[in-house]
Amino acid sequence: MSSSDSPLPSEKQADRILEAINDDYGGVVVEMTNEPMDAHIFVSLLRASLSHWRQLGKKGVWIKMPIELVNLVEPAVKEGFYCHHAESRYLMLVHWLPSTPNTLPANASHRVGVSAFVMNEKNEVLVVQEKDGKLQGTGLWKFPTGVVDEVGAGDQSYVIFNGEKMTKETAFMWLYKLTFFHPQGEDICDAAVREIKEETGIDSEFVEILAFRQSHKSFFEKSDLFFVCMLQPLSFDIRPQEAEIEAAQWMPFEEYTAQPFVQEHEFQRYIADVCLAKKDEGYSGFSPVPMVSDFSLPKSYLYLNQQDLDI
Amino acid sequence: MSSSDSPLPSEKQADRILEAINDDYGGVVVEMTNEPMDAHIFVSLLRASLSHWRQLGKKGVWIKMPIELVNLVEPAVKEGFYCHHAESRYLMLVHWLPSTPNTLPANASHRVGVSAFVMNEKNEVLVVQEKDGKLQGTGLWKFPTGVVDEVGAGDQSYVIFNGEKMTKETAFMWLYKLTFFHPQGEDICDAAVREIKEETGIDSEFVEILAFRQSHKSFFEKSDLFFVCMLQPLSFDIRPQEAEIEAAQWMPFEEYTAQPFVQEHEFQRYIADVCLAKKDEGYSGFSPVPMVSDFSLPKSYLYLNQQDLDI
Repeated sequence: MSSSDSPLPSEKQADRILEAINDDYGGVVVEMTNEPMDAHIFVSLLRASLSHWRQLGKKGVWIKMPIELVNLVEPAVKEGFYCHHAESRYLMLVHWLPSTPNTLPANASHRVGVSAFVMNEKNEVLVVQEKDGKLQGTGLWKFPTGVVDEVGAGDQSYVIFNGEKMTKETAFMWLYKLTFFHPQGEDICDAAVREIKEETGIDSEFVEILAFRQSHKSFFEKSDLFFVCMLQPLSFDIRPQEAEIEAAQWMPFEEYTAQPFVQEHEFQRYIADVCLAKKDEGYSGFSPVPMVSDFSLPKSYLYLNQQDLDI
Repeated sequence: MSSSDSPLPSEKQADRILEAINDDYGGVVVEMTNEPMDAHIFVSLLRASLSHWRQLGKKGVWIKMPIELVNLVEPAVKEGFYCHHAESRYLMLVHWLPSTPNTLPANASHRVGVSAFVMNEKNEVLVVQEKDGKLQGTGLWKFPTGVVDEVGAGDQSYVIFNGEKMTKETAFMWLYKLTFFHPQGEDICDAAVREIKEETGIDSEFVEILAFRQSHKSFFEKSDLFFVCMLQPLSFDIRPQEAEIEAAQWMPFEEYTAQPFVQEHEFQRYIADVCLAKKDEGYSGFSPVPMVSDFSLPKSYLYLNQQDLDI
């Protein structure tokens, strides 16, 4: 702990504390490399580092611990860290240093899914039967659905940045510091277009979000947001995805809504009613407007009732 | 591993494998108690259990590991487990046993926030100045905002279930098995009402979601969904929350929109335009319709343009 007596690290001192970058919120981020480290060496470095960061008045200390260094998780927890979140390849540990209330951001709480209403000029709707899942073998024809991708989660792919080969996540850390670019999660409108293409081979253009459901039946404590989207087909020749899709077809809309599953479930009935209203052009959903973010970050979408706003 | 040679566990065998409950997806869930366990004993139990579950054709094996047992994380990873997600009190480890592609659900990818547009009969809007955050000290008056609560995350509160005192999470595990009740995350409409009450003391009734933004600037790889809600005030006497709110007031809407921060930011300008359109009754947002879920689960809300649907 003696290495932290002086407020700024000398080069010699820097060897004895963990390498960290400042974040925008008065804290520091340590990204551990995959190289094995002895737990005793780690604890010694960590204690010296914590003492140093306390002297600098740092608030949150984040340690991104690759799964390969799982032996260091227990020592970190003993030094006061807790798990903020985890992905398949790493654990994110955090320690709030000040005595003031912890203002660290909450962990992600929702998964986001999309369902696609795609209708051709013959009033036929694009429907699929899935190979797996709760509805397997029921003969039900349903709208294509999918989950919005989280870019980088468990992703080990590499990029070249500043002439160096590094993981996307490492590049992200650098870029985050430089604040001119973020890798992104997937936009709802892009996810809907991608899912239709993957499951049915149909090209399409995003039109609107017609409705969405928030539910809390997800695995463990997580919640779901499920967006029902309308898309305009740009191609019509169906090629079902082999891995997930049993069958896909264009089905008359009336035949789709007449299915017992649709008639007997309140949610399905509502969605069918919304699609019917939309088909007859008496319904305004929310359409995406690209935004330049407030803080020089990459594009985001604002979804709103553009039709009513233009009036 | 010899304990798993017979397909069904005898009572004696049951002592030597981990206690698990079946989930609805052909997998099993192990909830470790907080009691310390030697890593060697754990590995022996885990190997016997995995062999047993493989014989039974189980798919996903979930282990909920309390932070107190962090010494068992490294051994579990060595047996093929990875981190699915984590909260402050536990890590959720998972192992996909079959040789078929992993169909385990994705981790939560989004945080959900709300912003509240609350206007009184004098066309004054409810605004606050926050004590912390990026806008601190800028003099900006903004709509009250907050994060949707994730019930149970890091929550150590207890409930009485079947005559026994247990954590909400443990009760949840039992209830999940019995499938007649789930503890819930917070609904967007409830979160907006709660945030206004907490920050300003104002009682209100939820009206509509006017618009929402999906952005990807969150900590690390997580995304945000931010819902702009309209609420009808039911009381008018402001009592600002001491911890987070510097000041709160009813401000003429024109004065709010004239602020440079609102004028200079595309997102803020759009929201002001939407609120103006709503105030003049020319804008339909999405309002919540309570649903009985498809699978006998508790209430969820479907948000849609009810005004257009009623036409």
